[in-house]
Amino acid sequence: MQIKPFITLVGAGPGDPDLITLKAVKAIEQANVILYDALVNEEILNYANADCTKIYVGKRAERISTSQDYINKLLVDYALTHGHVVRLKGGDPFVFGRGGEELDYAHQFNIPTAVIPGISSSMGLTALQQIPLTYRGISESFWVITGSTSDGRLSDDLKHAIHTSATVVVLMGYSKLPQIVELYKNEGKHNLPIALIQNGSLPTERIAMGRIDTILAEAERNLVGVPAIIVLGEVVAKHRDFEKLKKNLKHTLALQ
Amino acid sequence: MQIKPFITLVGAGPGDPDLITLKAVKAIEQANVILYDALVNEEILNYANADCTKIYVGKRAERISTSQDYINKLLVDYALTHGHVVRLKGGDPFVFGRGGEELDYAHQFNIPTAVIPGISSSMGLTALQQIPLTYRGISESFWVITGSTSDGRLSDDLKHAIHTSATVVVLMGYSKLPQIVELYKNEGKHNLPIALIQNGSLPTERIAMGRIDTILAEAERNLVGVPAIIVLGEVVAKHRDFEKLKKNLKHTLALQ
Repeated sequence: MQIKPFITLVGAGPGDPDLITLKAVKAIEQANVILYDALVNEEILNYANADCTKIYVGKRAERISTSQDYINKLLVDYALTHGHVVRLKGGDPFVFGRGGEELDYAHQFNIPTAVIPGISSSMGLTALQQIPLTYRGISESFWVITGSTSDGRLSDDLKHAIHTSATVVVLMGYSKLPQIVELYKNEGKHNLPIALIQNGSLPTERIAMGRIDTILAEAERNLVGVPAIIVLGEVVAKHRDFEKLKKNLKHTLALQ
Repeated sequence: MQIKPFITLVGAGPGDPDLITLKAVKAIEQANVILYDALVNEEILNYANADCTKIYVGKRAERISTSQDYINKLLVDYALTHGHVVRLKGGDPFVFGRGGEELDYAHQFNIPTAVIPGISSSMGLTALQQIPLTYRGISESFWVITGSTSDGRLSDDLKHAIHTSATVVVLMGYSKLPQIVELYKNEGKHNLPIALIQNGSLPTERIAMGRIDTILAEAERNLVGVPAIIVLGEVVAKHRDFEKLKKNLKHTLALQ
């Protein structure tokens, strides 16, 4: 049988295996090889054929990531030798997933490609928590920013974002939360509502909410840690428990 | 049998009925009533039970939208009288879908709610076209902005966005394309790559690509019309046909 090389980048969604699309499931069913990331729920691999080769290319136990160059080469090698390779990524393949680089590499070898979008944690985890990214009269836009730029600094886009009405979602930036809080404080945004969501959509989900001035304490109190997304904006106050939080804060102040 | 009122906002994705999540399908299967929008692919309604009541609340033939107040009331009335109401929306319920307002209204009546995210056209249609919203060294963020603010003006966020490296996606703004092009020209962004995607993910999909200076002509040549999303940013040049376009442009210039 002739091998027909093909690479499909597939978004696996934010964690809950039911947050994958039907189109993604169909692609997985037709894969000869699957290369999957650390953030992919392994239950999703059950859709694959019994003779499909499944290769983990996420962070290893010793916490050294598989290098992007190596993944690119694996993708192409497997496509040329096995046919249809599904590259399964957490969230959406193009939201800080380096999917674009993988496509560019594949195209150097004239391998045809397709992309199937996934629910990004930026939109999915906020939706599940019933925090609306946009709301008439409050926010006309939302801005998704990486917390891990290629050179390790805080993205300049974040500094711009503070001066807009955009709801801001920071992905892969939880370790920089104190810096982000400082940035907002310096701009006088002490009362801006902020939410942290760790392991969103999974049974291990943890959430902390508060305002710029209180969020570091809230994160500690609720034991939120990496990996967590950061949501900044007035829309966070639309969360049903945010009102409760406000009452608790008032109560605490009254006691002081 | 006792009625248990419950409202679930469900994202139906950008058009292709396979771009819905498994979780959304399960909610639809369990719905007693479905209120659905104009942008929802009606094939998706086939997942509903035979005795499920399906009500269209999108734009009518005479092009008058069903008012938001009326939809809010329908949602609550049906939940109180029929039980589980699924509010099925195109894309994601919180990306300019007024989902937040519907939840607020439901909560006034103490009706419990849930939200199931959907693939927003902003991310889904770009992914299908293999335009990466983010790309290391090119774009550290993406910004999704409405083209239809509540008072009809162009969002101020768009003016801010021009000065950042963010990939910008404008939804529901196609009728303002000439204004947007003018805005970018005034800031000297004549060569910024831009894409227009109409009816994305459907057999009727149309796309036009170019640069700020050429896009209006390209839109005309490719017969792109409402509803289309607008994507602005250097990442648009990553589209496989953008190179071809560049060659065509050079060819045209050489002929002049």
